[in-house]
Amino acid sequence: MPKSFTHEIRVGWGDCDPARIAYTANIPAWALEAIEAWWEHLLGGPGWYHVEFDLGWGTPFVHMELDFRAPITPRHRLICTVTPTRLGTSSIAFRVTGSQADSLCFEGGFVCVFIRAGSLEKRAVPPEVRSAVTPLLAPA
Amino acid sequence: MPKSFTHEIRVGWGDCDPARIAYTANIPAWALEAIEAWWEHLLGGPGWYHVEFDLGWGTPFVHMELDFRAPITPRHRLICTVTPTRLGTSSIAFRVTGSQADSLCFEGGFVCVFIRAGSLEKRAVPPEVRSAVTPLLAPA
Amino acid sequence: MPKSFTHEIRVGWGDCDPARIAYTANIPAWALEAIEAWWEHLLGGPGWYHVEFDLGWGTPFVHMELDFRAPITPRHRLICTVTPTRLGTSSIAFRVTGSQADSLCFEGGFVCVFIRAGSLEKRAVPPEVRSAVTPLLAPA
Amino acid sequence: MPKSFTHEIRVGWGDCDPARIAYTANIPAWALEAIEAWWEHLLGGPGWYHVEFDLGWGTPFVHMELDFRAPITPRHRLICTVTPTRLGTSSIAFRVTGSQADSLCFEGGFVCVFIRAGSLEKRAVPPEVRSAVTPLLAPA
Repeated sequence: MPKSFTHEIRVGWGDCDPARIAYTANIPAWALEAIEAWWEHLLGGPGWYHVEFDLGWGTPFVHMELDFRAPITPRHRLICTVTPTRLGTSSIAFRVTGSQADSLCFEGGFVCVFIRAGSLEKRAVPPEVRSAVTPLLAPA
Repeated sequence: MPKSFTHEIRVGWGDCDPARIAYTANIPAWALEAIEAWWEHLLGGPGWYHVEFDLGWGTPFVHMELDFRAPITPRHRLICTVTPTRLGTSSIAFRVTGSQADSLCFEGGFVCVFIRAGSLEKRAVPPEVRSAVTPLLAPA
Repeated sequence: MPKSFTHEIRVGWGDCDPARIAYTANIPAWALEAIEAWWEHLLGGPGWYHVEFDLGWGTPFVHMELDFRAPITPRHRLICTVTPTRLGTSSIAFRVTGSQADSLCFEGGFVCVFIRAGSLEKRAVPPEVRSAVTPLLAPA
Repeated sequence: MPKSFTHEIRVGWGDCDPARIAYTANIPAWALEAIEAWWEHLLGGPGWYHVEFDLGWGTPFVHMELDFRAPITPRHRLICTVTPTRLGTSSIAFRVTGSQADSLCFEGGFVCVFIRAGSLEKRAVPPEVRSAVTPLLAPA
């Protein structure tokens, strides 16, 4: 897996508001979709559905922050880059950026905790995740 | 319960597209929200969540059709009216209309089947639903 | 352009409801996304954004109907097929189907009218659309 | 206008994911809806639609951060509280919290800049906004 994983978003007419740019609330949703695609690529199954129902754990979000740098429009695909930045005892942090035509549109940080599926009970990072993710870590 | 149940939708900036009107895909979503609010009112619990997890059945949609009569904007609340139109052995049909400022914006028909929760297995209309809904039925 | 254009949808965790299948309201939204991708392919610009702001017309929906045949899950990509079925003086109709793992999940019919951008005024099908779409028409 | 404005969200079946709780990406969307409702209450018109098309300015978001404290479910309405926390030369910051059954579910901070409608050009806070908002400011 590359250190920086990219996921492409098709920005449509219905994603834009009357100011003719993507409505702000779509942007964290796209960042989450990119993070889910990252898990899909890492684990080889359908994202959080695979994590929850096949592997028996989950990674709910406890924090997100985003800076919006430039408007997003349907004129170009939005290329989201996902990089894991920190792996704690039972947490993982990601940096996600989104660009159109090589120009930065947003950047954000996201923190998730590891839990047992179907509970709110924290658990340690699964060993197979730790070994796969450690080489991918990059400073925030 | 009134024969015609109404549910109010707040149309926001983010619901509108660059043509300055509600994006079409939001309209079936609002009709479904109105039908869920109808169940909530009928049964006294939180909609399909209550139906699935407290009562043990479900009502997945098998058909929908909508005619769009006039654009929807944030200038007025959208008033959705839900009327059950037919109760079969294991199905229910609804008519839903949406109006702004007393002018019809959309009208639609929806058909759901009754299943056991967590399965695709059809079941008969629960007797308490049949007795509560029969007096509310109105021709489509 | 092939007679049957396909557009792939990534079904994610957030698209699913507590019954572990795609929430019904996402399905018409995906069908619309597939129709917009069809326009994008036909015209070579970013969908309805291109149509409205570069070409000066629009194609609002006046009717949709959908039959839901099987649940949709994140286990497979959803392959949507878009076929134009009728071209009137100032309208176009589409058939859209969605399949997962070669099994039909939904099928639907959609009708749009041609208008001048920024108005509700009907206009004739643009000649370049008529000539490009006529060879693609297939019976509903 | 009260110092702390509240806006109620109906959490539905379709807002929840297979973990039976509201999908994370809905939460910033609800916070934005609450902020738009705050503007609606302050200005007496339909939110950002009124701001953009009647008043001629806009307030795009440049930053958001959220901490997720407890899961959100359809069992209760989600009560969002919006408080302006800072008014700069051409910016405004808000604190938004969301609670269910008196228990905190999320808290967040949001920053918007004032622009001329239809542009990316910054402008000063409109005087009528400054005079209406200054008495409402509360520490973050």
